[in-house]
Amino acid sequence: MSDLAHIHHVEVLTPTPQASLDFYVDVLGMEVEHRDGPSVYLRSWGEYQRYSLKLTESRTSGLGHMAIRAWSAEALERRVAAIETSGLGIGWHDGDHGHGKAYTFTDPDGHAMELIWEADRYVAPEHLRPALRNVPMRNTGRGAAVKRLDHVNLLAADVAACRRFATDVLGFRHYEGIQLDNGDETGAWLSLSIAAHELIYVHDARGAHGRLHHVAFWVDTREECLRAADLFLDYGVHIEAAPSKHAVAGGFFLYGFEPGGNRMEVTTGGHFLYDPEQQPLMWTEAERAKGQAWGVRTVESFHVYGTPPAVEADRAYALAAGVAAPAPTTRTEKR
Amino acid sequence: MSDLAHIHHVEVLTPTPQASLDFYVDVLGMEVEHRDGPSVYLRSWGEYQRYSLKLTESRTSGLGHMAIRAWSAEALERRVAAIETSGLGIGWHDGDHGHGKAYTFTDPDGHAMELIWEADRYVAPEHLRPALRNVPMRNTGRGAAVKRLDHVNLLAADVAACRRFATDVLGFRHYEGIQLDNGDETGAWLSLSIAAHELIYVHDARGAHGRLHHVAFWVDTREECLRAADLFLDYGVHIEAAPSKHAVAGGFFLYGFEPGGNRMEVTTGGHFLYDPEQQPLMWTEAERAKGQAWGVRTVESFHVYGTPPAVEADRAYALAAGVAAPAPTTRTEKR
Amino acid sequence: MSDLAHIHHVEVLTPTPQASLDFYVDVLGMEVEHRDGPSVYLRSWGEYQRYSLKLTESRTSGLGHMAIRAWSAEALERRVAAIETSGLGIGWHDGDHGHGKAYTFTDPDGHAMELIWEADRYVAPEHLRPALRNVPMRNTGRGAAVKRLDHVNLLAADVAACRRFATDVLGFRHYEGIQLDNGDETGAWLSLSIAAHELIYVHDARGAHGRLHHVAFWVDTREECLRAADLFLDYGVHIEAAPSKHAVAGGFFLYGFEPGGNRMEVTTGGHFLYDPEQQPLMWTEAERAKGQAWGVRTVESFHVYGTPPAVEADRAYALAAGVAAPAPTTRTEKR
Amino acid sequence: MSDLAHIHHVEVLTPTPQASLDFYVDVLGMEVEHRDGPSVYLRSWGEYQRYSLKLTESRTSGLGHMAIRAWSAEALERRVAAIETSGLGIGWHDGDHGHGKAYTFTDPDGHAMELIWEADRYVAPEHLRPALRNVPMRNTGRGAAVKRLDHVNLLAADVAACRRFATDVLGFRHYEGIQLDNGDETGAWLSLSIAAHELIYVHDARGAHGRLHHVAFWVDTREECLRAADLFLDYGVHIEAAPSKHAVAGGFFLYGFEPGGNRMEVTTGGHFLYDPEQQPLMWTEAERAKGQAWGVRTVESFHVYGTPPAVEADRAYALAAGVAAPAPTTRTEKR
Repeated sequence: MSDLAHIHHVEVLTPTPQASLDFYVDVLGMEVEHRDGPSVYLRSWGEYQRYSLKLTESRTSGLGHMAIRAWSAEALERRVAAIETSGLGIGWHDGDHGHGKAYTFTDPDGHAMELIWEADRYVAPEHLRPALRNVPMRNTGRGAAVKRLDHVNLLAADVAACRRFATDVLGFRHYEGIQLDNGDETGAWLSLSIAAHELIYVHDARGAHGRLHHVAFWVDTREECLRAADLFLDYGVHIEAAPSKHAVAGGFFLYGFEPGGNRMEVTTGGHFLYDPEQQPLMWTEAERAKGQAWGVRTVESFHVYGTPPAVEADRAYALAAGVAAPAPTTRTEKR
Repeated sequence: MSDLAHIHHVEVLTPTPQASLDFYVDVLGMEVEHRDGPSVYLRSWGEYQRYSLKLTESRTSGLGHMAIRAWSAEALERRVAAIETSGLGIGWHDGDHGHGKAYTFTDPDGHAMELIWEADRYVAPEHLRPALRNVPMRNTGRGAAVKRLDHVNLLAADVAACRRFATDVLGFRHYEGIQLDNGDETGAWLSLSIAAHELIYVHDARGAHGRLHHVAFWVDTREECLRAADLFLDYGVHIEAAPSKHAVAGGFFLYGFEPGGNRMEVTTGGHFLYDPEQQPLMWTEAERAKGQAWGVRTVESFHVYGTPPAVEADRAYALAAGVAAPAPTTRTEKR
Repeated sequence: MSDLAHIHHVEVLTPTPQASLDFYVDVLGMEVEHRDGPSVYLRSWGEYQRYSLKLTESRTSGLGHMAIRAWSAEALERRVAAIETSGLGIGWHDGDHGHGKAYTFTDPDGHAMELIWEADRYVAPEHLRPALRNVPMRNTGRGAAVKRLDHVNLLAADVAACRRFATDVLGFRHYEGIQLDNGDETGAWLSLSIAAHELIYVHDARGAHGRLHHVAFWVDTREECLRAADLFLDYGVHIEAAPSKHAVAGGFFLYGFEPGGNRMEVTTGGHFLYDPEQQPLMWTEAERAKGQAWGVRTVESFHVYGTPPAVEADRAYALAAGVAAPAPTTRTEKR
Repeated sequence: MSDLAHIHHVEVLTPTPQASLDFYVDVLGMEVEHRDGPSVYLRSWGEYQRYSLKLTESRTSGLGHMAIRAWSAEALERRVAAIETSGLGIGWHDGDHGHGKAYTFTDPDGHAMELIWEADRYVAPEHLRPALRNVPMRNTGRGAAVKRLDHVNLLAADVAACRRFATDVLGFRHYEGIQLDNGDETGAWLSLSIAAHELIYVHDARGAHGRLHHVAFWVDTREECLRAADLFLDYGVHIEAAPSKHAVAGGFFLYGFEPGGNRMEVTTGGHFLYDPEQQPLMWTEAERAKGQAWGVRTVESFHVYGTPPAVEADRAYALAAGVAAPAPTTRTEKR
């Protein structure tokens, strides 16, 4: 098993901080746990850690960084050594609200990442104390009432390189993937646990680097995904993909855009992988052409749009969806 | 078919007006539509009428009155004539917020009732305007987010007399009932539509008159009943009966008490009755002894407690449940 | 209220009788109640009547006829008189399995219809006897386990004419509709009860007459629609539209094709209409352009394909979907 | 993390083999994968391994054995060494259908257990081949259509001793427990993964040894648990506890008895534990007195009945529930 336990939090950048915050609080139903300068730290009701989302004001949208927690101090050291060997290490910093020192690095596509070990356990204030002690916080029922951060999907110019880094250096398990007829690997579903995915890489059709495809938050039932779609509709959240079931990994999804332009998913379901000898299941081009599990065609934007915008077409798409449309980043080379 | 269309609203009395209001707004998710003196008028998101619940401050708990809307002005006149013939008529009054003149009467057990025809259609203010025009108001998702008033369950000393009044004078259809081995009729499920019940009478084991068993609000899914139970738990609402399925009428239920002491249900499911020749299905004592559909034993309080309290035991029960426990009414004779 | 109670059964024609029967039994989970010559009579578990679907071998697909049951013998006579006045009456026949004498007629588009009063009540054989007496038959859980016939959707060249016939002559209530910018009425949602629709007319883009758009069967929960989609997938049933929520009438849907080429829906949800003064809500072209409730684009086939095929394009579509593709009917004039 | 991956299968004994088999196939919806002498090997649709249940004819009911698969051959060797050190080891045998050599041992209460590494991966025959390759078998939808073995609950005279063996020797994580006011540990929820429980020990109130409390099979949704309850009802399966939500571990449950007398659960939901520093949450006597999550009182039988029957009272209970009631085992000392 891996030295790493789970994705502890993700930092998302937004050029529209207040509108984005309103989305996470009112529509997704998250709680503000802390504020510090340009950042607001938000949590879901089912998370043991203090927060899973750090929302940071920025001139553009996209991923700030992603932090993964190790199983132990020793496990952290082992992974840091492996990253340093890989040549993608950057170095330690003192930590942030809610966690101790962190080792920063990038994946081969340039996404900023951190490894941490020391982390606080959340203690709910009186008004958020749950009736049952085995959940960290009461479920207020507000908005979609997401339970926890589920997975992060990153765009990458070279999916195979990122997948290899995730498996060989970080210790993720590779459960599913997409391989085109020409041999190109265009998607990789990776996990640190029995859950079908915790980190996903998909090919960046814009040829850009370091971009975010989406962040997914978990709810316990498909009915909550359907309910979330009704809330998205009445809140004026642009629904990119209405609730349905993925073929790959089998999860149930709802995709929309937060005001900052970042794609967000409300998800549930999927499979658990218990086979110690599980081999990656590679989907073919012909299979993917069939659409999602029940035949729903994936909308074109899902294949090309990410944050920050990489080209003018991304910007135009964001404008049409009624969300922030910062100028496309000119960075098309990885950091 | 009946001259009467549906139960338009119900007035519930509470000795704890602010706490009760908080329950209906925060836990059930209703909206305040109007206020007038000791009363607050509340609505669910799916109701075409302005309100379905008039919550009125009172020294005790229980039913204020129940209003039924006719299919037309002529239908109203026909039913008023029938009620006057029955000897239970009282007379006209000018109406109330949201509806025109009303004819007041009581059922044989003394419950105050009204018939109305003229009624306003709700127009949502800007912040509650729905994205889809075929619902009257947006679903805010707050609390249990009940959709509409579903049915009213009244306690009665003589169920058969009330059932005959409902069918013969008011025109309800009689779909299901309970008949003891000794021939006593102790329950009657009545409807004005294809829905399995809109008005229920059950025997008042305390021998009192005019009491309320519960008011039920509809949600579209069983998952919402389960979700409501989680909310009840964290809001400290006393759950009398956790979500399960009724044998009689087949509805899915959750029962709890609002702070004023009145029993409230969140309900969904059940059957539609399409047979024009539908005969009442009478359940036997032996069948009822099996409990609810899946064998859940009905808690004892469900068979005896109503509002207002009729005896000291009711008061003690209310105290134990943490809700208002006004002095038992001494009225054991019908009005 | 109407003189008519509900759609009692529908006859569907199929050029592939055994494959179609397997679909209704194995995939939809219906029971064979009776067989007679080229017809098999099928029922859902929640239906009081003996059957709701008469499946008849034919050289083509489409609607055989649709039968509506009246509230009483007198109500039947009144509606027959009205139909005769309309000039669309045909005459009486002696009845069929499970019901007595029937008055046959057509709607203005030429769809064959019948009115009946006398009808049998289903009595389950021992192996299908339910544990709870208030349902007519046990739910075997097989396939989608549909509960009852919900609604019938007919294609019509002149929707407004059919809608007027349904409301003025038959007594349906008109709840929702679609009106194009040019004034054309292209859809009408009609009901005999509080349910949001029982009979639907939509414009036949092929200019044909007497065609069927789809027959819809009810399940109690959205989860059952999602489950049905998984079953459709593994049974190789062509899914035309994956589960999602309609904007018009708000129902939850799953559309697929039975082997005979007829479109079938598994449905639940939607709204109840309790307002005695309910006015038709007309959707505009701009509103319909937004797609279904959560933005799902309606697939093109949904707007044009019906049974029997009217043009070669219909036949080609059926072939592509892997279902029966009989030669297009040349009848483009109404009967 | 542990050297062990998951509970690979469980052997359940039954004195009524054909009736029990019918239950697992028709009601739970499992598939017969293999037969050998007195045993039938059954699988759920979502399991990668060939089977998860070995049903074996026996003069009595209860647990045959439970097999746990290691993460690797080396991991297996490490655990075997630890077991041998503990003094509870028995020795190797050549394996069984679907898996290679196995090391047998008992837990401190005498339950027969095995560790394995080599195991076959299931390949579905043509008629059970799924439409989507990332599930091992199609979901036929038959009966409750359970997806996979979820957890095993064992009765033990000394819960603390068994819990220590599970954590210290086998490497389970200890997530939740029950500790009485007198300090006695009467329940332990243990897991090899992020799932809230895979192995549970609860106190055997009869003072017997080696008994089974229940085996739980997973479904993906709460709606499937509710649906299973309807099926149990119509199939005449004794429902011990209708669907509701556990306080401990938060799972949704349905408990009934298979004809052989063994308690079976259909379960879903619950929490994932991601904290590498997760400490056991111990529930107090006062907390457990509140019943399940929504206040449902646990039925008395749940606290005392297990298989095989230990005393005459168990036998009487089984008779009352209509299931096999073999003579109570006289073994009250652990093996």
